[in-house]
Amino acid sequence: MMNSDVTRSRTWQRLKKLAETPYDLTGGGLARDGRISSMVCRTAGLRLYYASQRIDQTVLEAFQDYADEHRLVDRFKEMRRGSVINRIDGWESENRRVLHTSCRDIFSAHPKEPGASAQARAEQQKLAGFLEELDRSDQFTTMVNVGIGGSDLGPRAVYEALKAYNIKARAVRFIANVDPDDASQVLDSIDPHRTLVVVVSKSGSTLETRTNEELARARFVEAGLDPTRHFIAVTGSGSPMDNPERYRRSFYMYDYIGGRYSVTSMVGCVGLGFALGMEQLQRFLAGAGEMDESCEQSAVIDNMALLMAMLGLWNHNFLACPTLAVLPYSQGLHRFTAHLQQCDMESNGKSITRDGKHVAMQTGPIVWGEPGTNGQHAFYQLLHQGTEIVPAEFIGFLSSQYGKDMVVDGTTSQQKLLANLLAQSVALASGQHHENPNKRFPGNRPSSVVIGERLDPLTMGRLLALYEAKIVFQGFAWNINSFDQEGVELGKVLAKQFLHHLSDGQKGGSSIAEQFLQALEK
Amino acid sequence: MMNSDVTRSRTWQRLKKLAETPYDLTGGGLARDGRISSMVCRTAGLRLYYASQRIDQTVLEAFQDYADEHRLVDRFKEMRRGSVINRIDGWESENRRVLHTSCRDIFSAHPKEPGASAQARAEQQKLAGFLEELDRSDQFTTMVNVGIGGSDLGPRAVYEALKAYNIKARAVRFIANVDPDDASQVLDSIDPHRTLVVVVSKSGSTLETRTNEELARARFVEAGLDPTRHFIAVTGSGSPMDNPERYRRSFYMYDYIGGRYSVTSMVGCVGLGFALGMEQLQRFLAGAGEMDESCEQSAVIDNMALLMAMLGLWNHNFLACPTLAVLPYSQGLHRFTAHLQQCDMESNGKSITRDGKHVAMQTGPIVWGEPGTNGQHAFYQLLHQGTEIVPAEFIGFLSSQYGKDMVVDGTTSQQKLLANLLAQSVALASGQHHENPNKRFPGNRPSSVVIGERLDPLTMGRLLALYEAKIVFQGFAWNINSFDQEGVELGKVLAKQFLHHLSDGQKGGSSIAEQFLQALEK
Repeated sequence: MMNSDVTRSRTWQRLKKLAETPYDLTGGGLARDGRISSMVCRTAGLRLYYASQRIDQTVLEAFQDYADEHRLVDRFKEMRRGSVINRIDGWESENRRVLHTSCRDIFSAHPKEPGASAQARAEQQKLAGFLEELDRSDQFTTMVNVGIGGSDLGPRAVYEALKAYNIKARAVRFIANVDPDDASQVLDSIDPHRTLVVVVSKSGSTLETRTNEELARARFVEAGLDPTRHFIAVTGSGSPMDNPERYRRSFYMYDYIGGRYSVTSMVGCVGLGFALGMEQLQRFLAGAGEMDESCEQSAVIDNMALLMAMLGLWNHNFLACPTLAVLPYSQGLHRFTAHLQQCDMESNGKSITRDGKHVAMQTGPIVWGEPGTNGQHAFYQLLHQGTEIVPAEFIGFLSSQYGKDMVVDGTTSQQKLLANLLAQSVALASGQHHENPNKRFPGNRPSSVVIGERLDPLTMGRLLALYEAKIVFQGFAWNINSFDQEGVELGKVLAKQFLHHLSDGQKGGSSIAEQFLQALEK
Repeated sequence: MMNSDVTRSRTWQRLKKLAETPYDLTGGGLARDGRISSMVCRTAGLRLYYASQRIDQTVLEAFQDYADEHRLVDRFKEMRRGSVINRIDGWESENRRVLHTSCRDIFSAHPKEPGASAQARAEQQKLAGFLEELDRSDQFTTMVNVGIGGSDLGPRAVYEALKAYNIKARAVRFIANVDPDDASQVLDSIDPHRTLVVVVSKSGSTLETRTNEELARARFVEAGLDPTRHFIAVTGSGSPMDNPERYRRSFYMYDYIGGRYSVTSMVGCVGLGFALGMEQLQRFLAGAGEMDESCEQSAVIDNMALLMAMLGLWNHNFLACPTLAVLPYSQGLHRFTAHLQQCDMESNGKSITRDGKHVAMQTGPIVWGEPGTNGQHAFYQLLHQGTEIVPAEFIGFLSSQYGKDMVVDGTTSQQKLLANLLAQSVALASGQHHENPNKRFPGNRPSSVVIGERLDPLTMGRLLALYEAKIVFQGFAWNINSFDQEGVELGKVLAKQFLHHLSDGQKGGSSIAEQFLQALEK
């Protein structure tokens, strides 16, 4: 590419032009031209229905041109093959490869990046051995995951989603927040004798995690137990936590795996393997690998992650919608949006291009959402009649997990769930005229619908990798580095200043931190 | 007011003018002029620090002028005294009073609306009698709350926040989603013999709640129990659920209490009373009542809810920020933002004025957020360096709930929590220059800090009422009706069409619903 500013490219300008007259979904538009049956993308067992987006064939072609001009698929391929893409050209930066995909590229005889896949396989082997060891006794029923951010949100979201597949009598609990009440609630309710604690920190020095580990260790000592027999480490090789004298076992993650992309590394796998067993864990990884593979297709309409990425650009940059609601119609996915919030906003909430110039357009949207149908009784009022247009991504499944259902008024709960999901997508798109201005719905509010068969480990793996890839594609499309997080540093530095004043207890002083602490005492 | 369009008012235009040169918080601005110690509002035991907002004395005065011209405090007073404000002039509408404040106006000899307060007292008496009856045996340890939207989010948020104060061995569980897996997870894990089920629906006909009630009743019958001995109703008097033959006890809510404002009515009180006991419940109500009372102060700088409302307008309408992040630094508040999402977005996600004209400005913002410090490791990257500016409301407490803490590196976890909260507010406001463009922080990103002593029932009541009042004030300020929710109706109608086609099983047809269902089968 000649210029790092994508807005000056021919294909960006073409999309901008097309967005002046976006497709009209109201007045029957949604039902015309066989949109509903033709605007479907099928990838790796998932389906994406996108008739409710404000696009037509011409826009789809412009998506393809954009993807081609900016080499989006090629760059995804380069990523999977170990190219050093976590960098800012001309400036000090992390300068790393991005190989979370290797964690699930472990089933083929010819992995894309053999070295990283070999490391992933080695850790999986260690994990299998460790889980066999646990299976031989029934001492441990609970695992407490101590970690924050990428070492918490993704593993927690997937664990919650797949609880229905847990090995009976096994559970994972999570401590993340430095708020001591978070640790208290969990530690007060477990039996330490029957509990393993997995401490997860790539650097081995995360403030919250170190502190919570100390709180947890103290409880084990109080209970007369040796923490070394109960504590497990997941960390970078050589980190301060890589210390066999303090942990029963250590598992490794590598510098080419970013925290928010680490669910399929040992960060997620230790807890998920404990809860689900190796067989289901492997299905989860296989689903993710299958989706990664599908992302190498060059046709946008066959590449679900890329299509979702382009639809996202369309709504965000060209139709000027600042946020994206992810709305899973599945209670199991109740923490999935929180995970995506991190994965998306930490990746793409950036203001400079890959060569250090200020971007000329909006980058990552604000991602938010809650499960439907709950959300329908909460914030959907604003989605339908508010002044802010919120593009939505609905996620649903044809079958329930537990299969315990009942016919009430002629339909099952699962049918009611799916009917509501589809109805919302239609209502947002088509709107409704009414004489009473308070009963009018403007319509033309875009959404997509992702459908899977059932929320099982395989499908969860696919869904996770779908969103990871979508986010990566958007980063490529904006030409930003989606893999660093310099924006979290200033808060850490300032927090240390506050802590310094709190620990030395001296009063007076006129720094901002001191002024705030004084104001707090009054 | 002469004109229903507030943007044509003198005081709106004045704010618009002032917003052309908002206060600069960077380059030492935050620390100047004693901002930090002087920009503090103290109300009902809470404190609001607002030095990190882009305002100065002149803007504060313009807030006051706006509040005065638009009679914001008077309208709040009229609401509490039973004025029929839930209406759209000239159009068919709900035409109701708005008296959730009466639920906690039960301690004074002269309540603002004596009739509604008498009804609230009568229900509290019934509840006290019922809880005494339960105390006489120890049969019931679990209460399952079946409800959705206002009958779920608020009660759940407050229950989660106050778990540390639970009567030992008592717990409340929640079923909301029509997803049958939601009910399965809860019902599989309880002992029906020891469980009460409280079914909460004002209309008595909410689809999700009726369906989940049937699922729950079937489990009790399966266990050989008589559901009538275990099921309790909270509903409107005369609703289909107001039927003593089906419920052990019935509690009432009234048409002047909107679902999203119903936490302090029997909707929240039955579960909270069961978990906390009457004494703590009364403290919670007293805290809310205290905050309501403070909202009648006419000076904006002394009326915390009104000040927060005006700061919200400033950021949303004048500085053009489409969203608001509510960031509690307290794990107990992990569902509070979800409650606010409903309370705020369903109230103020509207497009017409109180007399049916299309609004001329943005109304309610998109509200989202997760607890800190967790969020710092998730989406704060975008808050600091993204292209979208996100105003933030931080909430924190001086002491932890459980009091189990530990000194690591010279400070306790609670100190670390608070230090991080303050550091984030400062970092967002002041920013940082750096040679490396990737390490630059633009600053001037506004936030407020709400501080309470400890998250106990009294404080929780205050906090809940603070946000309810803030939302109500914003509705007044935009001159919209914050108390109806016509925007949820179209989705319900369309869902019925989908369900009709699903239950009659006929194929073919060309309605939108039929096209979607056919596409789903392929």
